Amino acid sequence: MSELGAALRLERSGHDWTGELSDDWAIGTATNGGLLMALAGKAAAGCSVAGGGHRDPLSLSAVFLSPGGPGPVLLRPTILRVGRSMTTAQVSVIQQDDGDEVERLRAHVTLGDLDRYAEPVLKTVAAPSIPSPEQCASAKDAPPNVLLDSGFLRRLDLRMDPATVGWALGTPSGAGELRGWLRLADGTDFDAVSLLLALDAFPPVSFDLGSVGWVPTVEFTGYVRGTPAPGWLQLRLHTEHVAGGLLNEDCQVWDSTGRLVAHSRQLASARFPASTAD
Amino acid sequence: MSELGAALRLERSGHDWTGELSDDWAIGTATNGGLLMALAGKAAAGCSVAGGGHRDPLSLSAVFLSPGGPGPVLLRPTILRVGRSMTTAQVSVIQQDDGDEVERLRAHVTLGDLDRYAEPVLKTVAAPSIPSPEQCASAKDAPPNVLLDSGFLRRLDLRMDPATVGWALGTPSGAGELRGWLRLADGTDFDAVSLLLALDAFPPVSFDLGSVGWVPTVEFTGYVRGTPAPGWLQLRLHTEHVAGGLLNEDCQVWDSTGRLVAHSRQLASARFPASTAD
Repeated sequence: MSELGAALRLERSGHDWTGELSDDWAIGTATNGGLLMALAGKAAAGCSVAGGGHRDPLSLSAVFLSPGGPGPVLLRPTILRVGRSMTTAQVSVIQQDDGDEVERLRAHVTLGDLDRYAEPVLKTVAAPSIPSPEQCASAKDAPPNVLLDSGFLRRLDLRMDPATVGWALGTPSGAGELRGWLRLADGTDFDAVSLLLALDAFPPVSFDLGSVGWVPTVEFTGYVRGTPAPGWLQLRLHTEHVAGGLLNEDCQVWDSTGRLVAHSRQLASARFPASTAD
Repeated sequence: MSELGAALRLERSGHDWTGELSDDWAIGTATNGGLLMALAGKAAAGCSVAGGGHRDPLSLSAVFLSPGGPGPVLLRPTILRVGRSMTTAQVSVIQQDDGDEVERLRAHVTLGDLDRYAEPVLKTVAAPSIPSPEQCASAKDAPPNVLLDSGFLRRLDLRMDPATVGWALGTPSGAGELRGWLRLADGTDFDAVSLLLALDAFPPVSFDLGSVGWVPTVEFTGYVRGTPAPGWLQLRLHTEHVAGGLLNEDCQVWDSTGRLVAHSRQLASARFPASTAD
């Protein structure tokens, strides 16, 4: 089983699904939010299919309530609506803390059949032209950084367009854009569920504007628009409004055939040194 | 009291809030989804403030479960988290149907203090340069259209950039973009809560790609980024990916000072005539 497959392994337990969060997918002390979202998407799909509903996550919107940590995790899905072409579910991601259930995130997930939405493509946006993965900067070559030196990033092969890595060397471009490539380090390909992790796998776009420290997500909404072909994913992150330490971070993901397969927007909270903020 | 103020009037009833949906805010037979979202945002704010939490909606993400109609409406907010700078709530919008409670939408709402996020602005996007409201096409002058001839649109003063009204005359541009101005017909100004309605008040952007009929929202997420100054709002809607009848619709809203005060993305389902789809 692949590393990500193991991290997303769930067992049914009555109405709930149980899994295990591992340090392997932590950034600092917290489990990566994208992993929690992929788990929520997988539990929603499992619950939907068990009830005769739809299989593929089309949309997932999540609010983050507390940071996840290593240990058992409980996924509690509820079906809100079963329609002809879509099923809507709510999922809570829960961990025990001193015997009490503590909610990590709550998500609404819409499920459908991605094949149905493959064609015709009436409008799309092409991936930006960037250097090949071999010509990009690997996260492995980055200067030591507590946020980057994480179990999570060791499980990814993340390559940044050299034009958007200035922030890692102390010279952010100020453009508010990151571009690059992503695949899983063990060679496993992404699927519709794990695209939810890919959408939140890059460093925060606010780093390109000089933000420091952690960038907590307030709200995240991702749309999966297609089943990704095997191979590298190409990502572009950008922001359009950064004010008072709050910013939107938009992510676009294209598969190796150049098809847009997912896009997301999150509202996040970033800290900027006074010199940047003035 | 303004027309929108009356439509958003809520009374507390135990843990719930009660209001009334009027035909005045219908499009076809269904209550406008933006009005339901503004009601959800207002109930979340009321519940939050009553519990010592935060006041302004910063984000609202909603899944639509059934169409709202005229009659009493119940708003059921639950506080999920009270943090130092933000409060997170869930709100169900409910109507009675033959004595049963039927959920119209469910939303997650993050609340905070918008003043806190006003400055500094480190990056933003300017409103596109378009003709003034006086030089734009008023919805009142449009050819008769069952979708446009609605109580909802009579309560708005909606002006479209002449460059993006071809669809109303049967010649959509194909660009997937609508631009224009919005204010309330009775002259009331928008506030943080009613921006949630503004974000979903324009005709669907898919009309500019030749879609026909109604465009149901699958998921909607809006971020309020500032308290709007009095006067006209300027809106830009665009889509980046339309495939198999599903599209994202992104909306940006600037106030009369040119400040970006809200932006949103929704996943929606549109029908295209075969000739467009081929």
